[in-house]
Amino acid sequence: MRENDFLDWIQRHSSAHPSVPLHIGDDMAAVTLPASATPPTATALLKIDQSLDTIHFDLRQHSAAQAATKAVNRCLSDCAAMACLPAALLISVALPQKNGAPHDNAGLSSGGDETFAQELFLAAQAAAAKFDCPLVGGDTATWPHPLAITVAALGKTPTIGGVARYVTRSDAKPGDTLFVSGQLGGSILGRHLTFTPRIHLAQKILAALGEHLHAMMDLSDGLAQDLPRLCKASNVGAQVLAQNLPIHPDAWTLAEKDHLPAGLHALADGEDYELLFAVDSDHVDKLIHLDDVPLTAIGLITEQKTLHLLDKSHTSHPWPNLGWEHGAT
Amino acid sequence: MRENDFLDWIQRHSSAHPSVPLHIGDDMAAVTLPASATPPTATALLKIDQSLDTIHFDLRQHSAAQAATKAVNRCLSDCAAMACLPAALLISVALPQKNGAPHDNAGLSSGGDETFAQELFLAAQAAAAKFDCPLVGGDTATWPHPLAITVAALGKTPTIGGVARYVTRSDAKPGDTLFVSGQLGGSILGRHLTFTPRIHLAQKILAALGEHLHAMMDLSDGLAQDLPRLCKASNVGAQVLAQNLPIHPDAWTLAEKDHLPAGLHALADGEDYELLFAVDSDHVDKLIHLDDVPLTAIGLITEQKTLHLLDKSHTSHPWPNLGWEHGAT
Repeated sequence: MRENDFLDWIQRHSSAHPSVPLHIGDDMAAVTLPASATPPTATALLKIDQSLDTIHFDLRQHSAAQAATKAVNRCLSDCAAMACLPAALLISVALPQKNGAPHDNAGLSSGGDETFAQELFLAAQAAAAKFDCPLVGGDTATWPHPLAITVAALGKTPTIGGVARYVTRSDAKPGDTLFVSGQLGGSILGRHLTFTPRIHLAQKILAALGEHLHAMMDLSDGLAQDLPRLCKASNVGAQVLAQNLPIHPDAWTLAEKDHLPAGLHALADGEDYELLFAVDSDHVDKLIHLDDVPLTAIGLITEQKTLHLLDKSHTSHPWPNLGWEHGAT
Repeated sequence: MRENDFLDWIQRHSSAHPSVPLHIGDDMAAVTLPASATPPTATALLKIDQSLDTIHFDLRQHSAAQAATKAVNRCLSDCAAMACLPAALLISVALPQKNGAPHDNAGLSSGGDETFAQELFLAAQAAAAKFDCPLVGGDTATWPHPLAITVAALGKTPTIGGVARYVTRSDAKPGDTLFVSGQLGGSILGRHLTFTPRIHLAQKILAALGEHLHAMMDLSDGLAQDLPRLCKASNVGAQVLAQNLPIHPDAWTLAEKDHLPAGLHALADGEDYELLFAVDSDHVDKLIHLDDVPLTAIGLITEQKTLHLLDKSHTSHPWPNLGWEHGAT
């Protein structure tokens, strides 16, 4: 299948979308965004994120579809972190080619290459479609090196009176209650491939809290690394109650294997893709019964710009300088 | 330099921009786009494009800065092709790491890695800044494989009465005059690294012609491959006068070396990054003295859906099925 054939195939497999006046196939795609009339302005939210073979997935164990799904969901998790909706995705793929010369664009050499590329594209498209998000652009090349997938996301958000509604990580305030969604730790056992980006949950949290939702981010590198980032961006500190950490059953399973505390896995493991957010403590009641995904208060934002882990007796321990760096699996 | 340090360094080196309310450093960046008031809507143009070591550049010969500049300019050339302006760029980089385990994010291991990554980022930023385009997002990882750079572009365009103003490749009409900008062929001698994206030129062409500019694209794979794409998208054919092709001096130099005709290089070589566009023939006079870059009428769009090359005596030859596939250099 030559380059033009693959582009034709992709175009045939791209469905029309009401907010995509110009779909995949031209030099750029065009996507319609909501705007405010006065002043006439719109806000585009943007993200790029790469997923590499042997780092973020491993093709010796995982399929092209699993790799593409994860690559897309990682980017969608950032849309959740901002409490915006994904408006469009772009995907760029450097395909591993065992034989022949490398090619710009998909000079796919064999039936195997072709199936692999198609499986990858369809999985990416399906993952985006779960959030009504069209895949509007792509770039393919083959090279004699491992698979590299890069996804870029355009996020949309209402703009009211010229002010766009999204949630940063930089407005947490002393006294805020710190929450996480879901349960943490042990995602390496499989959840890092199968997680659900918390897009719908983030919308519900924002709708319930409005301006009382002060700061939010997604947990990609683990609470131990990500909370310091939120605190630094907000120029605050935090104290976390160790016993409040929602520990995922996978963290317990992992703890049995490696004899490390499950709580340490919850703190330090990466790729939870859960939400970490800071809420005005006077309004935490609005989060009760919000969703099937549990929301757990794990601590408080402090004026003092340090991070502490409190044990059962409220004895303070230094923040663990851990955090999972995605090693080769 | 650890990941957070590199992120800090990037943030320190990112200048404020009036249309970037939220710059690099959060989960996503926010970019303001022009919109129309009635209906309140805006149009985002989107593109993703990857540049790979040994395919699009060669680090044995080229610097990190050259690679990054080319990666950015390739994407900006697509903005030119749509006659839009770049509103923001994102860049994702898989950095080659000789020693140590691969890392998500820039766990840069040595002074050399650090300098390389910084040089790359600054060059990308500078290339974008030439068009007042901010670099608003990035992702870095290191792996024991060649450098892969992926750039995504957000293009902006005025929306008037809910209709966005951009130029596709799909509205060429029989009788249109076909133009190319600049001179073609032989870019492999160096221009593929140093070309200027025709963003300003495209703006001038659109301003001069308005609705009489029917279709446009950029020449990335060579006229021999790209013109059929424009014709197919527009459901038309074309005839090109071989003697009218503007042959670049580099094509002559290459012809002397490889004893192929210079005109063949002009037709078949890739990476010219010039504009190919179709204009209502009643309005071609509006293009006289438009710019310092020459604009050459090379042929006509035809109703008959075939492509022909006409020689001096207007004898028709079949369209060359060539087109440069970016081989390893």
